[in-house]
Amino acid sequence: MKWLLGIDIGGTTVKMAILDLQGIIVEKWEIETIILNDGAQIPHDIATSFLKKIEESNKKLEDFVGAGIGAPGFIDFNSGVVEQAVNIGWKNFELVGEFERLTGLPAVIENDANAAAIGEMWKGAGDGATELLAVTLGTGVGGGIITNGHIVHGTVGMAGEIGHITMLTEGGVLCGCGRTGCLETIASATGVARLGLEKRKNRDTVLNDIKAVTAKDVFDAYAQGDTVATEVVEEVTHYLGLALSNLANSLNPEIIVIGGGVSKAGEVLLAPLRKQFERFALPRVFGSTTIKVAELSNDAGVIGCGWLAKKMFLK
Amino acid sequence: MKWLLGIDIGGTTVKMAILDLQGIIVEKWEIETIILNDGAQIPHDIATSFLKKIEESNKKLEDFVGAGIGAPGFIDFNSGVVEQAVNIGWKNFELVGEFERLTGLPAVIENDANAAAIGEMWKGAGDGATELLAVTLGTGVGGGIITNGHIVHGTVGMAGEIGHITMLTEGGVLCGCGRTGCLETIASATGVARLGLEKRKNRDTVLNDIKAVTAKDVFDAYAQGDTVATEVVEEVTHYLGLALSNLANSLNPEIIVIGGGVSKAGEVLLAPLRKQFERFALPRVFGSTTIKVAELSNDAGVIGCGWLAKKMFLK
Repeated sequence: MKWLLGIDIGGTTVKMAILDLQGIIVEKWEIETIILNDGAQIPHDIATSFLKKIEESNKKLEDFVGAGIGAPGFIDFNSGVVEQAVNIGWKNFELVGEFERLTGLPAVIENDANAAAIGEMWKGAGDGATELLAVTLGTGVGGGIITNGHIVHGTVGMAGEIGHITMLTEGGVLCGCGRTGCLETIASATGVARLGLEKRKNRDTVLNDIKAVTAKDVFDAYAQGDTVATEVVEEVTHYLGLALSNLANSLNPEIIVIGGGVSKAGEVLLAPLRKQFERFALPRVFGSTTIKVAELSNDAGVIGCGWLAKKMFLK
Repeated sequence: MKWLLGIDIGGTTVKMAILDLQGIIVEKWEIETIILNDGAQIPHDIATSFLKKIEESNKKLEDFVGAGIGAPGFIDFNSGVVEQAVNIGWKNFELVGEFERLTGLPAVIENDANAAAIGEMWKGAGDGATELLAVTLGTGVGGGIITNGHIVHGTVGMAGEIGHITMLTEGGVLCGCGRTGCLETIASATGVARLGLEKRKNRDTVLNDIKAVTAKDVFDAYAQGDTVATEVVEEVTHYLGLALSNLANSLNPEIIVIGGGVSKAGEVLLAPLRKQFERFALPRVFGSTTIKVAELSNDAGVIGCGWLAKKMFLK
């Protein structure tokens, strides 16, 4: 048997998995992300944990094809250097080189959102589609774009920043990027909750029974026919549907995979979203694109990393 | 010496060129596009013209690596069939098979706008960039997207339809696609002229001295400081800049190449366009993207077709 190692580095935990060549997870575990000392010891923690795990499970290092590492931040894909990862503290950090020295295993690096997109392409909602757009509606809005079966990095690795598509050129809310009116200010979990809070004022709505309104509260209230929640969901799906239509007219993906916390609303989100998508996409584009909810949840990253290791290192 | 054949089929002429493996055109000629009988004889006309040309120029068929064919309409890239090309009359037309039977030369087919994008990537403004967005501002607005050095077709060949990005969700003008508010209704030559005609009414502007206002008239008047023309150019570059920023935040191209009739305005167009692009693109995206005018003019298509033939058939 040959194995792949997938490593998905986040701000609080590092998710790790051993996969077979078909992408089936055979072992899965997490370690804490120790960000002390600007994250300097993270590669050591990962390597130690991995080497201990293969010893425990009687696997041999030489049976591993390689490792894929998903990491947040700005990445130089060729050199394997993380130029900057604010949440972790890395700055020009030689992540791949360090990992390879500590384990002897060849490694490939990818942006964490892209790794999740690849995971969904391989074993999840993407179902092998080579033209895929993955959208994560979480605290922010992220994206991963796959064309011709390959992730799009763009010229300096900035591709997929669809959260910063400008939806409102005037009067938009301030975004974390410093500009206003970005898709992220509307369609993220934060954006949905904000709209709920704004629109409930002096209105008859169940949202006034909740102190800290969340995106989930809004979708729950919408499913029960609440008028204010309906206004919020219509606004959110209008702008998200418009953004996705414009991307789909440009890229003609076979599948659009919606992940992240907001996607847990499932069909309650997808039904009004598809209506807006149909409204703004060309008929041949609408007819050839399926919008689906992500299927792999927290495993998408490690599975995508496994795919990258296979693609890169399997002879 | 080995040769490539580039064929760019348009509604009125077929442009043909023989290129060397470096993409230098050594022979270039045109024949009329005879659309009688639903374009059935076009492959014969092309084959006859090509075989005559190589005889005249003492080249041997066996020294040709292959042919690239750029064609308008909806194309099935795998089978080489043009599903529909309205301007020519083709419907499920076996263009590649027919050409190969008539010449004995292997051929690859591409959408005409994409072929031009590839041409600019190889020998024009793209200058070898593997991440490139080509935009044609002509009668309509077309696009070609190159990621990882390959053209993006999308799942049914609809990728690059950036003319149908919706810029105005309410109150937009009717587009040829049947919807309203598309980028094409604003940033095409037709759109620029329309805005000039609309805005000149009851105003003091040199545009009132011209009967049939064209996009060129608008840019000429703008270059001379005409107030109404300035309003038009500001509106056009606002929407075009917004659309390109949103695409660039998603794809992070190294180069955006602007072609087509409207691009003849050169820096008069690019200067205000870059301002809008800077306004809406993420700083790292703005900083890594160059907006340039197309350099190959009418040769872009045949050069792109030559590249495709080389890529596909050169051993």
